[in-house]
Amino acid sequence: MRTYKLTISYDGSRFQGWQRQSTTDNTIQFILEWSIGKLVGYRVHVDGSGRTDAGVHARGQVASVQLGRLYDTQEFRESLNRYLPEDIRVIKVELMKNGFHARKSAKGKKYEYYIDCREKPDVFSRRYCYHYPEKLDIQAMRKAASYLIGARNFTSFTDDKDCSDPVRQITNIKILSSGEKVRITYYGSGFLYHMVRILTGTLLEVGTGKRDPAMLPVVIAAEDRRLAGFLAPARGLFLRKVYY
Amino acid sequence: MRTYKLTISYDGSRFQGWQRQSTTDNTIQFILEWSIGKLVGYRVHVDGSGRTDAGVHARGQVASVQLGRLYDTQEFRESLNRYLPEDIRVIKVELMKNGFHARKSAKGKKYEYYIDCREKPDVFSRRYCYHYPEKLDIQAMRKAASYLIGARNFTSFTDDKDCSDPVRQITNIKILSSGEKVRITYYGSGFLYHMVRILTGTLLEVGTGKRDPAMLPVVIAAEDRRLAGFLAPARGLFLRKVYY
Repeated sequence: MRTYKLTISYDGSRFQGWQRQSTTDNTIQFILEWSIGKLVGYRVHVDGSGRTDAGVHARGQVASVQLGRLYDTQEFRESLNRYLPEDIRVIKVELMKNGFHARKSAKGKKYEYYIDCREKPDVFSRRYCYHYPEKLDIQAMRKAASYLIGARNFTSFTDDKDCSDPVRQITNIKILSSGEKVRITYYGSGFLYHMVRILTGTLLEVGTGKRDPAMLPVVIAAEDRRLAGFLAPARGLFLRKVYY
Repeated sequence: MRTYKLTISYDGSRFQGWQRQSTTDNTIQFILEWSIGKLVGYRVHVDGSGRTDAGVHARGQVASVQLGRLYDTQEFRESLNRYLPEDIRVIKVELMKNGFHARKSAKGKKYEYYIDCREKPDVFSRRYCYHYPEKLDIQAMRKAASYLIGARNFTSFTDDKDCSDPVRQITNIKILSSGEKVRITYYGSGFLYHMVRILTGTLLEVGTGKRDPAMLPVVIAAEDRRLAGFLAPARGLFLRKVYY
């Protein structure tokens, strides 16, 4: 068996998220497994670096798959893209050492969240950012973000009620404001279910003055989801890079 | 009666173009007339500055409509946007002097055509540009474009076989290349059916070396559609501005 690493982009708008489900075929994992299966002639199992929710996008999701023989990686990529719908593209195929696993080998991840604060929603970016027509205090948001850096118990920032290991390390959060568009970039060891979207909702509540940035340590310490902010919508979120 | 000017953006991807048709309700003009009708309580007729083909986008299309009374233009815009689907947005509503007509009063138009020359199509811009993975000679394209400036008979550059007045004035064509993305901007008095897309196809054939830029005057003089280039796809085209 040979192990391959696939780097994938997808427009998550019309999918039910990454993970295969028994109730729908409309997931990225299923479509990818089906397409590779068509290409190689047998059923395959693909491991993703992690799930993305319904509507979340990826520019740099990584998956690993074991195949029976050696393929020319560029030809394999091109053939696979012919089977895939146009909103899922394989950007790169690499032959890896056996043992490589998209999720288990991952060292960290980068997510980006896009916010459009203009008064009117834009017809061309509506699927790829959250339209939030408010004036944001970027300095207050940066101050709030600074309390989130480090290894923390993020129980307050997940909707996974049975999370056995809620400690994650956020290494950096960058908040960039250009015109009336804001991009928040999260770097970390890994992220819990809904964590990036809840962090974003919380930072947005700080940005509009509904929340004091200095209260963030209290929210973290409480380990109580009800104390954190709202769940920002999926459409603004991009899984940008997986580090190995 | 009061005359209003509406400035409109739309993502043309899923529509059958601007113009109302007896065979489908899926046109921008029909949806706009229906939505305004809902708002004012009677049937209205909307005049566009011109048609856009199925799949063509607009950021600055203009329409005029006559309504029975005075409306607060900002409130009217906001109410109308609540009736419209999210891929059609009214950006601005202005009260005009009576006699204003979106098409008849128009002095000129600006169109933009977006081309993505990168090897791999991008999942996030696929609806809004033409993926044309070729190396383009921008200087040759600019030279070819220079022959198109001025008042010309554009019979070779339209698919309208019964065009009674094929003379149009192109005032400028700008070709901007950034990385592997190219934007061609057309300014002119008006444009014939398919004209911007055929001009673009012709310029692309110059860009890849299939066509000599110095042959453009011959193509124009021939007044024969078969001598011009291919019809570039609708998805890359934006009606950007109408001048009054």
